Amino acid sequence: MPPIISTEIFMNDKILLAHGSGSKLSHDLLEKILVPPINNSILARMDDAAVFELSGKLAFTTDSYVVSPIFFPGGDIGRLAVCGTVNDLSMSGAEPLYLSLALIIEEGLELEELRRIIESVKNTCAEAGVQIITGDTKVVNHGKADKLFINTAGIGVIRKGLDISGANAKVGDKIILSGSIGEHGIAVMSQREGLQFSVPVQSDCAPLNRLVSDMLGASRKINCLRDPTRGGLAATLNEFARQSNAGISIEEEKIPLHDGVRGACELLGLDPLYIANEGKLVAIVSPADTEEILAAMRKNKYAGGAVVIGEVTAEHRGRVVMKTRIGASRIVDMPTGEILPRIC
Amino acid sequence: MPPIISTEIFMNDKILLAHGSGSKLSHDLLEKILVPPINNSILARMDDAAVFELSGKLAFTTDSYVVSPIFFPGGDIGRLAVCGTVNDLSMSGAEPLYLSLALIIEEGLELEELRRIIESVKNTCAEAGVQIITGDTKVVNHGKADKLFINTAGIGVIRKGLDISGANAKVGDKIILSGSIGEHGIAVMSQREGLQFSVPVQSDCAPLNRLVSDMLGASRKINCLRDPTRGGLAATLNEFARQSNAGISIEEEKIPLHDGVRGACELLGLDPLYIANEGKLVAIVSPADTEEILAAMRKNKYAGGAVVIGEVTAEHRGRVVMKTRIGASRIVDMPTGEILPRIC
Repeated sequence: MPPIISTEIFMNDKILLAHGSGSKLSHDLLEKILVPPINNSILARMDDAAVFELSGKLAFTTDSYVVSPIFFPGGDIGRLAVCGTVNDLSMSGAEPLYLSLALIIEEGLELEELRRIIESVKNTCAEAGVQIITGDTKVVNHGKADKLFINTAGIGVIRKGLDISGANAKVGDKIILSGSIGEHGIAVMSQREGLQFSVPVQSDCAPLNRLVSDMLGASRKINCLRDPTRGGLAATLNEFARQSNAGISIEEEKIPLHDGVRGACELLGLDPLYIANEGKLVAIVSPADTEEILAAMRKNKYAGGAVVIGEVTAEHRGRVVMKTRIGASRIVDMPTGEILPRIC
Repeated sequence: MPPIISTEIFMNDKILLAHGSGSKLSHDLLEKILVPPINNSILARMDDAAVFELSGKLAFTTDSYVVSPIFFPGGDIGRLAVCGTVNDLSMSGAEPLYLSLALIIEEGLELEELRRIIESVKNTCAEAGVQIITGDTKVVNHGKADKLFINTAGIGVIRKGLDISGANAKVGDKIILSGSIGEHGIAVMSQREGLQFSVPVQSDCAPLNRLVSDMLGASRKINCLRDPTRGGLAATLNEFARQSNAGISIEEEKIPLHDGVRGACELLGLDPLYIANEGKLVAIVSPADTEEILAAMRKNKYAGGAVVIGEVTAEHRGRVVMKTRIGASRIVDMPTGEILPRIC
């Protein structure tokens, strides 16, 4: 390795435009910072595409992450980028296997911050049991991005005999929520705006693939699964209602809420139903198997607070209706306009 | 669809932050602008992950595109994003099948520009015979990105019995280049900097999957394949030399050069060996089959100018040596530092 290159990397301690140019500096960045923590036999080939054997019904998904700030209570953009894609695969009933990792870095990013993010990617991949097998790095001029954007795409194998889709909700099915809502959005927003609440809120950001395995171990009669991220629980339930052309009825008092989220929402006039989660799921399941599924969920560390929050109805098809604490009914509409920007 | 939403989309004619929030506006953007041009039966399910059946040895790749400007002579960021990933898959010997499309949009982007980009994505997918089956859209505040960044990831099936890798070059193999070099980089740079050359240069941006099929139809004895993008022909040949631990010898006078590229490089002091291409490939092939492969390539519209530029040697292993026009030999090193930023 020519010493001048190493000096450049280590003296500046910041990302340069040239780190994205396909030059020696790009190769150094890959070989010294990006690849070693996450390396494996497929990634190590370093060809234009990763190659592996796979057969069956596959799931494929992608998400870009533009969260600001890139570090927040309970997580960071690296953990988020792995969890988000692992969770999207899991919600199709797939076992997540392989991820891609594509970075768009703003010139001037501290190498130390990049190292911490890659370490977090590594740890989250290890927790979820997935591998990064291909990647890409681009650098844009200072002021043309916001520190770091990450895209992950992912591939998984769908377990045999499953047909999980937002379009599969049936009248009488029960709606299970895996735990309290709104923590990710409130944690990111409070960090970004420098707000302090009496009860601190941590992001719930977590890989949910093992939780889904536990649930499917208890019953295969899971019709819909989704993680309520952008747009919150309200968006997910509305999507189910529309895709399945079914009514969704929920009860406000059944929905678990962390004290810090409740306080922050009251203070800021936000509705927790619309706040993003990154470690929760909603399942619509056959009524007969509800208790078995709930019991399996509650043994998993990410779903100790799993509860039934409502059911699928033949009334008000395509709409979500909530019975409020005071006994009234209100329509929970699809979110409109901007809620909390840049939370994922 | 509530009229106020439609009005918002069509009166402003610009992307708003709320288009990325998971709200009704996000759904409207998807349903009115992004999905219809590229829709297909897998994408239309609109679940968290796309689902399809596939078996065998698969290739998986990803790239983010941050080219500036997003429209340039001969292409745009949409065509580039499809070609880049189609080509990376093709270079592993795979038939590209499915792509993801993830957009990071800067608030304020003209909807009309976005429409043109999606139209270009559609046309390029049709040309290459691939489908977009999953996607994502994020919007960041004005000044926190540069109009539009696109990530595509792609999946393909590797043809049976092939083993193409940068590590497979053998002494005596011939090195084929599919045509003239440097056009993409010069076209983008001249558009960005407002330079005009007497001979205008267009990007060579093109999907090369059918060219690779034509080549494999002529012979299976193709050992290495790569598209010389960032870092240009010099980077690709150096990667082959290192991965295969072989010497690479090329002849300067054999390398085709467009007059406009030659002129621009002379004027600006650039070396065309280091300038990016987006529609060229380098193949290292068995000497016995070289003529058959060349003949097949020249029938394809993207490789009419295919030529042998050199061969693999037992000397100077790990290095690229070029015989110059005046008969001297010089080492062609891996590019150092910044060449032309933001060209892909």
